[in-house]
Amino acid sequence: RSGEMAKLTQLIDNEVFRAYATYATVVLVKMMLMSVITAYFRITRKAFVNPEDTASLGKGESAKKYLRTDADVERVRRGHLNDLENIVPFLGIGLLYALSGPELSTALLLFRIFAAARISHTFAYLIPLPQPSRGLSWAVGYGVTILMAYRVLKTALYL
Amino acid sequence: RSGEMAKLTQLIDNEVFRAYATYATVVLVKMMLMSVITAYFRITRKAFVNPEDTASLGKGESAKKYLRTDADVERVRRGHLNDLENIVPFLGIGLLYALSGPELSTALLLFRIFAAARISHTFAYLIPLPQPSRGLSWAVGYGVTILMAYRVLKTALYL
Amino acid sequence: RSGEMAKLTQLIDNEVFRAYATYATVVLVKMMLMSVITAYFRITRKAFVNPEDTASLGKGESAKKYLRTDADVERVRRGHLNDLENIVPFLGIGLLYALSGPELSTALLLFRIFAAARISHTFAYLIPLPQPSRGLSWAVGYGVTILMAYRVLKTALYL
Repeated sequence: RSGEMAKLTQLIDNEVFRAYATYATVVLVKMMLMSVITAYFRITRKAFVNPEDTASLGKGESAKKYLRTDADVERVRRGHLNDLENIVPFLGIGLLYALSGPELSTALLLFRIFAAARISHTFAYLIPLPQPSRGLSWAVGYGVTILMAYRVLKTALYL
Repeated sequence: RSGEMAKLTQLIDNEVFRAYATYATVVLVKMMLMSVITAYFRITRKAFVNPEDTASLGKGESAKKYLRTDADVERVRRGHLNDLENIVPFLGIGLLYALSGPELSTALLLFRIFAAARISHTFAYLIPLPQPSRGLSWAVGYGVTILMAYRVLKTALYL
Repeated sequence: RSGEMAKLTQLIDNEVFRAYATYATVVLVKMMLMSVITAYFRITRKAFVNPEDTASLGKGESAKKYLRTDADVERVRRGHLNDLENIVPFLGIGLLYALSGPELSTALLLFRIFAAARISHTFAYLIPLPQPSRGLSWAVGYGVTILMAYRVLKTALYL
């Protein structure tokens, strides 16, 4: 089966595909960091949602007071959900775009802009920066994804 | 590296894969529209969640009244989350299904039904249409995804 | 076009890719089950969020009392969202990892641990089991995904 493995390796050897693999992994790991930041704020702010999570903080009524929402926790969670809403389309459309045979330089430019936009979005959301910082970083990532979707449909359209 | 690129281009030239690329892009772009509809309702209903988003509407207490939930905004957000919950499985299982060598006519039928079901789901949710419109459109998309999952496991099972 | 189809079939014939296809489908179908469990609890607990969903339970004020949150429904929904947050990264990073040419035995081990961790996470969340059951199962799936991300970046890095 080394012949088949060679073909797979060729896919990962293709430069556009490697660029996709790199930037898709970067934005997914960035998204995963949101879980850790949520856990950090839940623990430091003592703001939990599941009763079993407060068991170590006390018994009965004394633990119940930690079942509450916290503004910082909710902010990170909104950033996480926004990541899901925007990185899932990039994951799918970006893969198909990478397979549609774009110019390496164009593909690299779009992947870099998308990753920079999503990283900026996280900083704008968590610091938080005054608007329109967050709105603009969202819009740039959104626009790049739409551009790639247009290219996929132009290349592959089969209804 | 033109040989490798040729192989990638062959992937996108395969008709089943092109059909997947088309319908996956369509449902992802439809899902992305939910962000724009949410933003539209937030702005027209003046219902925001982040203090920094209301800064342009006034200062101090006069801006605080716009930090509120709105039934229409929440409805779009529920539709968006339902999209994520259902389109993510389609994205993954549909790709594997397209690579499992199905009949073109069967694949096209399943992709078309899934896309139609998710578009119907959005209309049923946002208008809103009386039940069981939304429930049925959800169930049809769900059933199609399960059918494709069955075919993937039958073809590829390697535990 | 049988030549192209043959190439696609070779992809699904590759053992690492088949293992990915199997475990990705398993965890996605598991995630899809969360929708059914949510619907089950909404119906048995009579706890709905959309007015049109309560129409069959009575008219006017008598139906309004079913527009409420229920602790069990909310628990399943949190488990579902946690699945999305963790299975989406696995879907993307796992695919790229499978294409990066890993040893079959290593890939199988990582896929199996990830699937077991996510299934454990669901049981720990829904029963619920005392902590750190849920926390540990989350961390194991998270760690496996980070390991695969490291391998993808080591193999494919193209910034």
